[in-house]
Amino acid sequence: MAKQIRKLQIIPLGGMGEIGKNMLALRYEDEILLIDGGLAFPDADMLGVDILVPKIDWVVENAHQIKGWVLTHGHEDHIGGLPYMMRLLPKVPIYGARLTLGLLRGKFEEFMLREKDVDLNVVNPSDRVKISKNFTVDYFRMTHSIPDNSGLIIHTPLGRIVHSGDFKLDYNPSDGHTSHLHKLAQAGEDGVLALISDSTNAEQPGYTPSEQDVMNAIEEIIARTRGRIIVTTFSSHIHRLQNVIRIAEQHNRCIIVEGRSMIKNSRIAQELGYLETRKPLAIIDEMQGIQDDKVLFLCTGSQGQPMAALSRLATGGHRKITLKPGDTVIMSSNPIPGNEEAVNRVVNQLYERHVDVYYPPTYKVHTSGHGSQEELKLILDLTKPRFFLPWHGEIRHQVNHQRLAESMSIPPKKSLVAQNGDLIELTHNDIRVVDQVESGAVYIDSVGKFTDEITEPVIQDRQMLSNDGVVVIMAVVSRKPNIEVITRGVAQNNGKLATAIEQIALDNVQRGIREKRRLNDIRNDIFYPVRRYLRKATGRNPLILPTVIEG
Amino acid sequence: MAKQIRKLQIIPLGGMGEIGKNMLALRYEDEILLIDGGLAFPDADMLGVDILVPKIDWVVENAHQIKGWVLTHGHEDHIGGLPYMMRLLPKVPIYGARLTLGLLRGKFEEFMLREKDVDLNVVNPSDRVKISKNFTVDYFRMTHSIPDNSGLIIHTPLGRIVHSGDFKLDYNPSDGHTSHLHKLAQAGEDGVLALISDSTNAEQPGYTPSEQDVMNAIEEIIARTRGRIIVTTFSSHIHRLQNVIRIAEQHNRCIIVEGRSMIKNSRIAQELGYLETRKPLAIIDEMQGIQDDKVLFLCTGSQGQPMAALSRLATGGHRKITLKPGDTVIMSSNPIPGNEEAVNRVVNQLYERHVDVYYPPTYKVHTSGHGSQEELKLILDLTKPRFFLPWHGEIRHQVNHQRLAESMSIPPKKSLVAQNGDLIELTHNDIRVVDQVESGAVYIDSVGKFTDEITEPVIQDRQMLSNDGVVVIMAVVSRKPNIEVITRGVAQNNGKLATAIEQIALDNVQRGIREKRRLNDIRNDIFYPVRRYLRKATGRNPLILPTVIEG
Repeated sequence: MAKQIRKLQIIPLGGMGEIGKNMLALRYEDEILLIDGGLAFPDADMLGVDILVPKIDWVVENAHQIKGWVLTHGHEDHIGGLPYMMRLLPKVPIYGARLTLGLLRGKFEEFMLREKDVDLNVVNPSDRVKISKNFTVDYFRMTHSIPDNSGLIIHTPLGRIVHSGDFKLDYNPSDGHTSHLHKLAQAGEDGVLALISDSTNAEQPGYTPSEQDVMNAIEEIIARTRGRIIVTTFSSHIHRLQNVIRIAEQHNRCIIVEGRSMIKNSRIAQELGYLETRKPLAIIDEMQGIQDDKVLFLCTGSQGQPMAALSRLATGGHRKITLKPGDTVIMSSNPIPGNEEAVNRVVNQLYERHVDVYYPPTYKVHTSGHGSQEELKLILDLTKPRFFLPWHGEIRHQVNHQRLAESMSIPPKKSLVAQNGDLIELTHNDIRVVDQVESGAVYIDSVGKFTDEITEPVIQDRQMLSNDGVVVIMAVVSRKPNIEVITRGVAQNNGKLATAIEQIALDNVQRGIREKRRLNDIRNDIFYPVRRYLRKATGRNPLILPTVIEG
Repeated sequence: MAKQIRKLQIIPLGGMGEIGKNMLALRYEDEILLIDGGLAFPDADMLGVDILVPKIDWVVENAHQIKGWVLTHGHEDHIGGLPYMMRLLPKVPIYGARLTLGLLRGKFEEFMLREKDVDLNVVNPSDRVKISKNFTVDYFRMTHSIPDNSGLIIHTPLGRIVHSGDFKLDYNPSDGHTSHLHKLAQAGEDGVLALISDSTNAEQPGYTPSEQDVMNAIEEIIARTRGRIIVTTFSSHIHRLQNVIRIAEQHNRCIIVEGRSMIKNSRIAQELGYLETRKPLAIIDEMQGIQDDKVLFLCTGSQGQPMAALSRLATGGHRKITLKPGDTVIMSSNPIPGNEEAVNRVVNQLYERHVDVYYPPTYKVHTSGHGSQEELKLILDLTKPRFFLPWHGEIRHQVNHQRLAESMSIPPKKSLVAQNGDLIELTHNDIRVVDQVESGAVYIDSVGKFTDEITEPVIQDRQMLSNDGVVVIMAVVSRKPNIEVITRGVAQNNGKLATAIEQIALDNVQRGIREKRRLNDIRNDIFYPVRRYLRKATGRNPLILPTVIEG
């Protein structure tokens, strides 16, 4: 009998071919290890959708095999989907660094999850965790834009899998904790079967500037400013917050945090000791009548979100602060792709208020948290993987990362540009896609306490409605038929159009009565001729909603 | 009696505080001179809108004073609005270079404008045109991304107004015709009352690279490629088209133009002698079975427009060409702000088809047509204007252009960041905004031959529909009341919601019948409780359309 070939499966459920909602599953025999579970932000055409989380039907089906869920760091695109997914899965051990689990815990209340429902296990960023018979994970520290960020060396019966996590190589990180490159080097010496590595900036030549460079630019601005200062960045960018706070305190400014997620995340980070401040951070109500040159606001809205603090300031709609000439706004962030227009609008609105505005790339007040080509090559060189999976990127980033890998003097034996839902099979000799599992996104519409899934047909309806509006036709079938037509969001909303539609409907209702057709048939008798008429007369395709009732 | 102070009015109707739909009016006593009349593209939240043109109520009111309409060049954001506006105005003399008027003429058929309805006057880019008693215009050539591009020196009784037009300073322009800097210098020596200058790249340090640099990069790609080549750029970027054609011909490739505007604009430019080709440009049907290394396609879709040639190629929806590995796509353009997401999607789709893709900034296959800070400063230095109006930019660009001007050793006496609709009054001693005229945008929805204005309320309806969908409630008031509820695009589209709404409607209809209320009152009796219910139960705000009919 032939010896059974040993196989490891890797199943990306998010984060392949996209930036966002990162989630991977590894399976060896009957054991599954999950890595991260993030959320993503919708494209412009996903109307009314607030966030996307991975579709995890495959995980749910195989839930009994899950042995552990390891988290690399506390950013939303790595942990933001967990509370949604945990409700679909049994209680499994979750591993993560202290800050990562702290930020995760911060979401529990909103989702009505209780401590007893979850099994959280704190690991230090250099711990070894024995997950199960077949999986042991070595955490190692990688510098990124949040403390306690880790990569993973996953020991399996088939060999080592190195997962870079999100990273840049910062030799001057804000907390002084540099990357554990020696662990990568050692893994490389011992032999790495496969590397899974961050492709975000694979199109970017050179090195990503250090956080220190950004801080020098921001300090220069703070030092010479006499008016109020407002700084906006991602509230989860704890390093950036720490640095801005340090500089502000050196220049004798009190720090006021503003915006829901900024208040929440800074509080969590502070409680866990990841954010050092001379005085506790204040919120607006605690600080009235403070001098302009003695205050710095840290606020949300770096992505131009219309309801966030900065947008309200920019439009003059903030309840407690009104911007005035002499104020300075530092936008210490880049727009996520898709948010450029919203961010640009905020910048222009700030100029309209005659405040001084600093933003990248014109001003060097932001740097990426992800490594550029030279950094990616260093990781490839240190680990010398047999197989390579470019991850955490759109296909453009994955392909360019693959090209980088293949340009190395010691290239991987094979690299694979994978997609979400690929069932990737890894043996000693090959890496290839052998099957597909169900994958994709669950669309979440979330207004305050109301959270709903939105289905694809609902979004398609919305797209139709948003382009061409809606035509509602009501027909009462009775001795004296009665027709009402309402159009909303239709370009030609003059009476002529409604009259023509009414006539079409009336003719068909009368015919339907004569021929004793069923109500549903009469409905179709109205729908198709009206659609034909609208297309021919206006070239447009509004949503047509005929209803036929017996009077 | 005091001597009357002489005043010149400048009224921007588009292009101030925005990039797009450029249009200026100058008035001296009872004479009006119009400059350009462009279109703009909508923001993402202007649902179903295709283009914007300036609102010209003020011009229409004062139409009898118009003495001439001068055009600086043939780009859509300078001439694309003319056909819409010409229908609202009397026949006035229009002045422009040969190519500019050729491109304008190309639009007449679509708008059913006949030659006898218009008064087109060709000027050379160094002509002097006597417009009227008070206005004489010296055209002068400025390099940009289209041939026959001009700036204007406008002689008025009050002094010279210099209008830069769109420009960059290209010392190696494609057609060899460099800018007439001597005319600017002479105007500066003679005295310039006000400068109106292009702010597009006022945030960009240094110089904008020459068209020649881009061509070197593109030639390098074409020279080493063996498969088919597809190049996309703006169809009005005649210089880029000319250069690509020249290189393609040198490498023995036939050129096929594809996409409506590409075919049209290249034909016009060719007929007028602005596009030189060894062989006439071909369209796809004329070129079957040609070898892969003997063809180059010039096609539309550089902005990711879903219906354009490149998008169809990228999605596999093109009727005649199917991309395959070995094909090369060169995206010789930048996304206009707001189009980043669409362009990014096309790039990723191309990677999915395993074609080679080149795009800026990763590859140097595009350069801006607008000058950077050093070029802007040169124009300020040459003209030494008394007053300065930064134009052709959002407020961020205008303010940064203003800062540049104020940083000059000889700064303007005053510079003004104006908005559309400002009535700017210029005297020898001051420039200031003294009033506002009606301004803004007319929204155009244009599908094939169907062109409609869209009003603000229609767009508001569409925004509501696109976020939360629509709830249609039909109530038949009769002895046995009948209620039908349809929801579309609503997140919670389960039966429970519809049942609850039905019940609310039924209760109010029955009450209405008992109390003999009028139909319209019953309609309101349904609308408000349903809205309250939806807000409370779902947190959402769909468009609610109740109709009440007698059965």
